[in-house]
Amino acid sequence: MRLAIIGTGLIGTSVAMAAARIDGVELVGWDTDPNELKIAADRSGLRAAQSLESAVSEADAILVAVPVGVSQGVVQAVLECAGPEALITDAGSTKRGLVEHTDDVRFVGGHPLAGGEVGGAGSARADLFSGATWFLTPVESTAGVQLERAFRLVSDLGAKPRAVAPDVHDRILATVSHLPHVLANVLVSEAAGTVSDEDESLPATGPSFRDATRVAGAPSSIWTDIYISNAEALIERLVSVEAQLAKVREMLESRDSGALTAWNDAAGSQKARLAGSGVIGHAVHQIRVQVPNRPGVLAEIALALGQAGIDLADLQLHPADDRATGTIVLGIEGGENVERAETLIAGLGHKVSEEQ
Amino acid sequence: MRLAIIGTGLIGTSVAMAAARIDGVELVGWDTDPNELKIAADRSGLRAAQSLESAVSEADAILVAVPVGVSQGVVQAVLECAGPEALITDAGSTKRGLVEHTDDVRFVGGHPLAGGEVGGAGSARADLFSGATWFLTPVESTAGVQLERAFRLVSDLGAKPRAVAPDVHDRILATVSHLPHVLANVLVSEAAGTVSDEDESLPATGPSFRDATRVAGAPSSIWTDIYISNAEALIERLVSVEAQLAKVREMLESRDSGALTAWNDAAGSQKARLAGSGVIGHAVHQIRVQVPNRPGVLAEIALALGQAGIDLADLQLHPADDRATGTIVLGIEGGENVERAETLIAGLGHKVSEEQ
Repeated sequence: MRLAIIGTGLIGTSVAMAAARIDGVELVGWDTDPNELKIAADRSGLRAAQSLESAVSEADAILVAVPVGVSQGVVQAVLECAGPEALITDAGSTKRGLVEHTDDVRFVGGHPLAGGEVGGAGSARADLFSGATWFLTPVESTAGVQLERAFRLVSDLGAKPRAVAPDVHDRILATVSHLPHVLANVLVSEAAGTVSDEDESLPATGPSFRDATRVAGAPSSIWTDIYISNAEALIERLVSVEAQLAKVREMLESRDSGALTAWNDAAGSQKARLAGSGVIGHAVHQIRVQVPNRPGVLAEIALALGQAGIDLADLQLHPADDRATGTIVLGIEGGENVERAETLIAGLGHKVSEEQ
Repeated sequence: MRLAIIGTGLIGTSVAMAAARIDGVELVGWDTDPNELKIAADRSGLRAAQSLESAVSEADAILVAVPVGVSQGVVQAVLECAGPEALITDAGSTKRGLVEHTDDVRFVGGHPLAGGEVGGAGSARADLFSGATWFLTPVESTAGVQLERAFRLVSDLGAKPRAVAPDVHDRILATVSHLPHVLANVLVSEAAGTVSDEDESLPATGPSFRDATRVAGAPSSIWTDIYISNAEALIERLVSVEAQLAKVREMLESRDSGALTAWNDAAGSQKARLAGSGVIGHAVHQIRVQVPNRPGVLAEIALALGQAGIDLADLQLHPADDRATGTIVLGIEGGENVERAETLIAGLGHKVSEEQ
């Protein structure tokens, strides 16, 4: 399989280094910055292409890993010169804008929850995606076979794929990534203000401050575009945070220790509940689903499972000889999830059987 | 030296375990919870006293490590039964309220920037204070000899003492500790809300969310009192954060990428500047200061150095034979700070000479 990587920064080069370990993968790459491309080639063994077109034209799969602000244009350019059977996927941090404008059957939006404080090919690591969630955002137009291939590629890179609708992805990311980045910036600015107000140098701070500000001032070359492209969901969160802070302020103004205790206890329970929802079993159970051979079926099933928090360890498509039907084999993580998955899929009108 | 520890939870027991390593220290402890006291005795070898009075009456130094909400009463009780030469210090997270009500010459307020997610004697560690900043909050009434002893005790426990005025301490802590705790709670609550809005389980989140919410839901038994006792400074910060968030929201609403970039870049520079302000040299230079033997002189010098970000590796008082004057020997960290320290101290009207 020939894998083309368009954009060989931290993510693209890490993908190349991870993919270099997979049997039978031939790597080709392209970047507008020849230095980054050279570092990527040196580190992963990918062949540096002379142009985007030459990187893409013969590729079986193409991963676009460019800043969010330019990803729509680059994905469009890739779709124009990629072959009719090629998989095109991307790694951008927001998905709705891109996916809404890209209804090509070959395209599956993607986003790995991985990165680093320092960007660039020089910071890439083959194990960057080890165990990380990698969102895939199929829509109705997505071909099942391409979703299957994206799923397998992401798994082969060491990540855990998870299907999610593009708008849900963006709302979740606003909460778990973009908002924490905004708050980190705000905290740093509060501390800088306190230091200058007090004419006091800040002491070695406690761990709570260090942890909370680790991502402050992440590169604007990446983050301005992320903020803008997810502005709607992020504004919603900011309005909500401002309201929460005003409530806490009122409790403090009235020295209402009962209300503060209730609020703080609630955060403790919510934290425990959130931590619990990330816990999954390790045993993998296979179930088989008979499906009609029409577009969107696999996306629908993957999205339903993703929404229920059921992670897939494996996903295979087996078309029947008549091409009118097929079988999907799903690897379900956690024994307790098998029955839930079967019920969900049966609810979508498909026949389910457990693998013998 | 007999060291009495009043309150043998995480901090008190860690102090006992660290102090057990110091030559010539005899440990006695007291806690209202007999189980915690027993664990502390088992782990550190301290003698469990039968009452607060019996723990304190013969002690040379007494450390009060109880929740902020009760610390004023406990410190008062300790002052009443401690000897006239004893040092009394505490470890509470806010200082202004306590210090304002305690003008005893024997008392020096204190606060180590150390702790843990799980409280109690069972979680104590002998190295909890290793390299941690330990604030001391002397005021005019504080005897120089007691500040010197507090300084030495804290250094012997492995911490880096730093003198700071009580109100400045509370404003700094509002920024670097109490506000991050509030924001962690708010973030967890946003995430819990997103999950239930989307009928979606939260995926394994990225590192920015994990780091930013690590301290969410810290024990209310400790934190409600901290929030209340530092309400004024914390309210000030919350007002400022709400204003900052509203500004970010406006930039997002107008999709103003120039303003977002400038804001994000500023956070990056502020973070770098804050990180830089914590950097100190390792070489220790000694300087000697001739001072009149009157109360408050040592506190004044220590506060001036602390405010300038100059950490003290050592501090000794040598009264002259006439008892009217004395010499203070200061160990200054970082060669570049020696001249600044000398200028500052000379500016306070004292004669300075470098140690030969």
